[in-house]
Amino acid sequence: MQDFKFYAPTEVAFGRQAEEQVAPLVKKYGGTKVLVHYGGQSAIRSGLLDKICGLLDEGGIPFVKLGGVVPNPRLSLAKKGIDLCRSEGVDFILAVGGGSVIDSAKCIAYGLCMDGDVWDIYLGKVKPTAMVPVASVLTIPAAGSEMSWSSVITNEDGDVKLGYSDDISRPKFAIMNPERTFTLPPYQTAAGVTDMMMHTMERYFTKDDDMDITTDLAEALLRSMKNAVFAVLKNPEDYRYRAQIMWGGSLMHNGLTGCGISDDWATHQLEHELSGMFDVTHGAGLAAVWPSWARYVMHENLSRFVRFAVNVMDVPNDFTDPEATALKGIEAMERFYHDIGMPINIRELIGREITDDEIREMVRKCSRNYKSTCGRLKVLHAEDMEAIYHMAKG
Amino acid sequence: MQDFKFYAPTEVAFGRQAEEQVAPLVKKYGGTKVLVHYGGQSAIRSGLLDKICGLLDEGGIPFVKLGGVVPNPRLSLAKKGIDLCRSEGVDFILAVGGGSVIDSAKCIAYGLCMDGDVWDIYLGKVKPTAMVPVASVLTIPAAGSEMSWSSVITNEDGDVKLGYSDDISRPKFAIMNPERTFTLPPYQTAAGVTDMMMHTMERYFTKDDDMDITTDLAEALLRSMKNAVFAVLKNPEDYRYRAQIMWGGSLMHNGLTGCGISDDWATHQLEHELSGMFDVTHGAGLAAVWPSWARYVMHENLSRFVRFAVNVMDVPNDFTDPEATALKGIEAMERFYHDIGMPINIRELIGREITDDEIREMVRKCSRNYKSTCGRLKVLHAEDMEAIYHMAKG
Repeated sequence: MQDFKFYAPTEVAFGRQAEEQVAPLVKKYGGTKVLVHYGGQSAIRSGLLDKICGLLDEGGIPFVKLGGVVPNPRLSLAKKGIDLCRSEGVDFILAVGGGSVIDSAKCIAYGLCMDGDVWDIYLGKVKPTAMVPVASVLTIPAAGSEMSWSSVITNEDGDVKLGYSDDISRPKFAIMNPERTFTLPPYQTAAGVTDMMMHTMERYFTKDDDMDITTDLAEALLRSMKNAVFAVLKNPEDYRYRAQIMWGGSLMHNGLTGCGISDDWATHQLEHELSGMFDVTHGAGLAAVWPSWARYVMHENLSRFVRFAVNVMDVPNDFTDPEATALKGIEAMERFYHDIGMPINIRELIGREITDDEIREMVRKCSRNYKSTCGRLKVLHAEDMEAIYHMAKG
Repeated sequence: MQDFKFYAPTEVAFGRQAEEQVAPLVKKYGGTKVLVHYGGQSAIRSGLLDKICGLLDEGGIPFVKLGGVVPNPRLSLAKKGIDLCRSEGVDFILAVGGGSVIDSAKCIAYGLCMDGDVWDIYLGKVKPTAMVPVASVLTIPAAGSEMSWSSVITNEDGDVKLGYSDDISRPKFAIMNPERTFTLPPYQTAAGVTDMMMHTMERYFTKDDDMDITTDLAEALLRSMKNAVFAVLKNPEDYRYRAQIMWGGSLMHNGLTGCGISDDWATHQLEHELSGMFDVTHGAGLAAVWPSWARYVMHENLSRFVRFAVNVMDVPNDFTDPEATALKGIEAMERFYHDIGMPINIRELIGREITDDEIREMVRKCSRNYKSTCGRLKVLHAEDMEAIYHMAKG
C-alpha cells in the first residue's frame, strides 16, 4: 500500500436549483471581478450563459466574458484570456462548460500569477506557486476537471497536448445541475462516460492489490456508470441517471479512486497523441486504445484483470483459466464500447487506417523524442508504445 | 433525489510517515500558536504525544498542552480549554486522539470565537460564524470527526449529550497512520467499526431510492468494514486492514455516503441518551439499539432492508418474501455484532435490565421534554422512542 494524500476541497452544489448559488459562492471564495469563460454556442443557446451572467449582475459582481474554447483547448485562447484578465483586473475565473473550458480556465489562472510563458508550466520548466481561484458551472460530465488537480492544454504550434497536475488548481466550487446535460448528444454522452470510467481504470490497474476500499469503491463506480449510460442513451432527459453520470464523473477523478495505489495513465498518454494529431474526441480516443493496452500489459497483474472481468464486466470466473477470464473481460469492455457507440480501435476512431509514419510520429511525441516512458503497471518504452499503436490499428 | 452539497475540504495525510508532516501542515493552515489537545495516558505511553510536540518544536511552532479528554467529552474541560487558549493566544487546535478529543477541540474552537457560553451553540440558541482552525492526528478510527462537520459534547450538569454540525468545523487536515491503531483493544476496535458503519447506515436507510451511486458506495464501504474488522481482531498489527478501517471511518462520515438522500440519525439520537445516562461506549450503544430500531421501522421502506440484507449481509434473497429477507438481514447484523463482541440489546450493554423509569427518563430527554421527534425514514415521536427502548431491553 502506498502512503497517500487525499485532498478534494471543491465545494459541490448539486441539483436542480444549484445555479442559484453562483453569486454567493463567488463572493464566499473571494471573487470581486470575474472572467466568465465558456465554449461555443450551446451555452448561449441553452440560456445558461445569460442566466449565470444575470445572477452575477444581481449579486453585484462585475464580470467580463470570453468564449470560444474548443475541445482539446488551445494555448492561444488561454493566452488571450490572460491578457484580458490582466487588463480588466479579474481575480476569479468561472468556467461555464465542460472539461475543456475548465482546463482553459486553469491555464489562464496559472498564467495570471506568473511573469513568463504559461506553457513553461506544462513543459515542466516552471512550478507554479499560486493561481487565481477557479470554479465551474459544469455542463459536460467527462473530464472530472471540476474537482481534479489536472488540466490539459494543446499548443497548436506543433500539435502538442500536455497536462499538468497541481493541488493548487483544485477548483473552489462546482455547480452541477444534471438538467443542463439533457441536451448532450449521444456521442458526447458516451465519450464522456468512457473518459470518466478511464480516470478510474487508470488507477484501478495497479500492482497495489492491498488497498481494498479503493478497489471496492472503483468497482462500484464503474458498475454504476455502465448501468447509467444505457438509461440516458435511451432517455436523454432521465434526471436520475444523468445525475449518476454527473456526480460519478467527479468522484472518479477527484482522487477517491486513487488512494493508496500507484496509478498508471498510459492509456491517457497514448491517447493524447491521437487527439493531438487527429483532433478526435478524447473519450473516443481512449476507447480506441484501451483494449490493445490491456492485452499488452495484462500479465503484469493478471489477477487484477480477472477481478475487473468478474466484478465490473460480469464475466463468469473460469477459476481454472485466469487468462481466459481476463481476456473475456477485455472483450466485454469492447462490446460495451460498441454498445454505446464508441470505437475499439484507431480505424474506427479516425475512419481510415493509420499509417506507419503517423504511428512513428505519435511514438516520438509520446516518448518525448524517445527520452520518456509512460505507464506504471508496465513501464512503456517507445517500442512498447509502437507495439500498442500497431495492435490498435484495427 | 435530494439536491445536495458535498464539501470535504480536510487534507488527509495517510500512511506510515504521515506524522512527519505535522509542522508544515500547521503552518500551511495558518497556525502560529497551537493547543495540543489529547485524552488519557495512551497518547503519552505510546510516545505519540512526545513525537508530535517534538515535531512542532523542530518546526518552530510554540504550543501548550491540555489532556484529560474522556469518552463522551465533557463541556467543563472544553471550557477550561477555551480559557487556556485565550490566555495563551492560541490560534490553532491540534487534536491528538480519537473522536472525543476532536469533538472537544471543535467545541473549544467555537468557544474561542464567541463571547457567550459555547453550550448555547449545542442548545441551538446561537449559530457560530467563525472558529479557530482545528486539525487532528488520529489514533482511534470511529467517530469520523476528523473529516466531518459534527461534534458531540456532554454537559455533566444534567447528563445531557448534544451534537452540533456546521461546515465551518470541518478540520483543516487529518494525519492518519494506521500503525497508531495497532494497540487499540478489541472492544474499542469493534465499537469503532460499529460506529463508523452506523454513520453510513444512518444515511443508507432512507426513502430516497434513486441516488444509485451513493447507495452503491455505501454498500461497498459497509462490506469492506465487515471484512476488515475480523482481520484486525485476529491480528491487531495487520497494517492492511487497520488501514481500511482508518480510511473507511473517514469516508463513512465525511458526507460521501449521504449525497442526494435524506439521512435518518434516529439510532444515534436514541443512543445518545444511553451513553449520556450510563456512560457506555458510543459504538456499543448503537449496536444495542439498532436491531430494535430496524425491526420497528423496516416497513417504511422494506425494499431498502431487503437490499441491505442481500448486498451487505450476504443473505440469499427470498424473492417471494421480502419481509423474511429483510428480517434475516437484521438477524445477520446481530450475529455480526456478537461475532465482534458487541451487544445487541440494552441488557447486554449495561449488564442488567434497564428499568421503566430509566426508559421514561431517556424518552423525556430524547424527545426534549416531549417536544421533539427524531429520525426521518420514520419520524419517531416519544411513544415510538419508548416502544423501541422497550424492544431493545433484552
